[in-house]
Amino acid sequence: MKTRSILLNSRPQGMPTQENFKFTEEDLPELQEGEVLLKALYVSVDPYMRGRMSDAKSYAAPYKVHEPIMGGIVAEVVESRNNQYKKGTIVEGRLPWQTYSISQGKGLNVIDPDLAPLGYYLGVLGMPGLTAYFGLLRIGDPKEGETVVVSGAAGAVGTVVGQIAKIKGCRVVGIAGSDDKMKYLQGKLGFDEAINYKTTDNIAAALEAACPDGVDIYFDNVGGEISDAVYPLLNNFARIAVCGQISLYNTTTQPTGPRVEPILLRTKSLMKGFIVGDYASDFRQGVKELAAWVKDGKLQYEQTITDGFDQIPDAFLGLFKGENTGKQLVHVADPGEE
Amino acid sequence: MKTRSILLNSRPQGMPTQENFKFTEEDLPELQEGEVLLKALYVSVDPYMRGRMSDAKSYAAPYKVHEPIMGGIVAEVVESRNNQYKKGTIVEGRLPWQTYSISQGKGLNVIDPDLAPLGYYLGVLGMPGLTAYFGLLRIGDPKEGETVVVSGAAGAVGTVVGQIAKIKGCRVVGIAGSDDKMKYLQGKLGFDEAINYKTTDNIAAALEAACPDGVDIYFDNVGGEISDAVYPLLNNFARIAVCGQISLYNTTTQPTGPRVEPILLRTKSLMKGFIVGDYASDFRQGVKELAAWVKDGKLQYEQTITDGFDQIPDAFLGLFKGENTGKQLVHVADPGEE
Repeated sequence: MKTRSILLNSRPQGMPTQENFKFTEEDLPELQEGEVLLKALYVSVDPYMRGRMSDAKSYAAPYKVHEPIMGGIVAEVVESRNNQYKKGTIVEGRLPWQTYSISQGKGLNVIDPDLAPLGYYLGVLGMPGLTAYFGLLRIGDPKEGETVVVSGAAGAVGTVVGQIAKIKGCRVVGIAGSDDKMKYLQGKLGFDEAINYKTTDNIAAALEAACPDGVDIYFDNVGGEISDAVYPLLNNFARIAVCGQISLYNTTTQPTGPRVEPILLRTKSLMKGFIVGDYASDFRQGVKELAAWVKDGKLQYEQTITDGFDQIPDAFLGLFKGENTGKQLVHVADPGEE
Repeated sequence: MKTRSILLNSRPQGMPTQENFKFTEEDLPELQEGEVLLKALYVSVDPYMRGRMSDAKSYAAPYKVHEPIMGGIVAEVVESRNNQYKKGTIVEGRLPWQTYSISQGKGLNVIDPDLAPLGYYLGVLGMPGLTAYFGLLRIGDPKEGETVVVSGAAGAVGTVVGQIAKIKGCRVVGIAGSDDKMKYLQGKLGFDEAINYKTTDNIAAALEAACPDGVDIYFDNVGGEISDAVYPLLNNFARIAVCGQISLYNTTTQPTGPRVEPILLRTKSLMKGFIVGDYASDFRQGVKELAAWVKDGKLQYEQTITDGFDQIPDAFLGLFKGENTGKQLVHVADPGEE
């Protein structure tokens, strides 16, 4: 069986480019006892992957140069020598960017293709949805009537954060990068206010107008100057969930800015970094509640699906240009086809 | 009855000076029903007062210009028309910088002069001790074998933080500003390591050597560049209690520095600002445990006592020059004397 692979060709300096990726083709070895052959159906591209492309300290181990990039993938078991996985089973797991791959079955989650579209398991019912769920509920701890600001609001995590905050009875203000995204957030997702950081001259003033009662929870996907504009509005005992810092991922120098500690002290606020894996023991409960909200129509979900294995690097690079609304996926193949 | 008062004469720009204070003398009105006449015995001077001298947003309301400065004071009831307080009772409360003052008795705590020296109720058994206690135990949540770094280690709060951390079985590293303070921390208080930030060229390297297993808890009284040196050593799930930012209190421009959010994210760490009043409902329990440690000799306590009401501004200004070891007090009068 031949597979195509996308390797990390070199570590990006600053913004990644096509040059950092390399396509190869090779033969897979014969399947051994206990192994399954997986065909990639949907490939997730996510901002955190930028961190793993560097060899700097990060919360995830760096990718190795000249090896396939790994990420969230929905795949079909097309051949099995493992009793746990029958041929035709659909699974989700952290797998290499390959059209076909061999797995020993560890860390694969069997998913139900009838419950939700397959891509949802890489989004609202997968890592991004769970990231939103645990970050908002466990760190943010939203209470009815509080004001929640979310940056990167139109992304895979931000859209879910804002909607859960609405379910919890909060005023929700989203910060995003286009008028289309603002319309989407306010029109379809029920955000109370949205701010386009690319066209708003004075983000601090716009935020102040959008948050007349201050900010109780800030769910931060972005960092940098947008956060600087949020911090002065924090109320006493505010909570800041630091989920991502995408505005800083491609900087090559130490980012500096106004010190936040004096504000945390004045307002007695809490700031906490986290990754979804910190809450792994409660994933099952999270997926259950998220799935119920999706089913009840309380949680809208949108995917941007790019087609074709060749398009994976482009789809990834697009994340840093703010091209996607909702979760960015790449569709590689359909189940059942040869 | 005549009283001498120290008024805020003008708001400091940057470092406060004698010019910001004004001594006055006036007659107190006759005592009304329900009131007590208080004679100041010990006056506490504390770094947080610098914040109240500005009219910028702070966690405490600003002092008013041309009115007496308020702070922690131990006083004797020398005349009483309030049934709750007999003549001769010793109390602690937030009172004006006056030799004599009139109070309606609200917010006064009766203290036992036989249990501990009077000054202790402004220190280890008062606000600084409780600040150390709740900040370290509630935010830091120390576990045996963890490494705790405390900045401003030789101050009223820092000395108590380090000793409680030792009681909890932690490795304790203190950062302070003189060799005498280092000796005091390591010799008398049992800190494992101490770093003199004024004479150490490379604080980051000194910290790294002093914390071979990284930093689990950082109790921050100082902020600024010392914190910048601590952050890169944070372990996963570290806790940072932001108690003070004395290095920044006298800056006249917005302090900037390396952004801390990427480190909080990478290490999944928690940072929280707090003031002692956040834990007011548990003060009684805190004082009880602190008093027991003092009694058992587990908690050493040192005061720097300056003598004379006239010396209050100087004693306050000295805080910003790092002159005090342990709690800085001013002794104004003794109980019983006229």
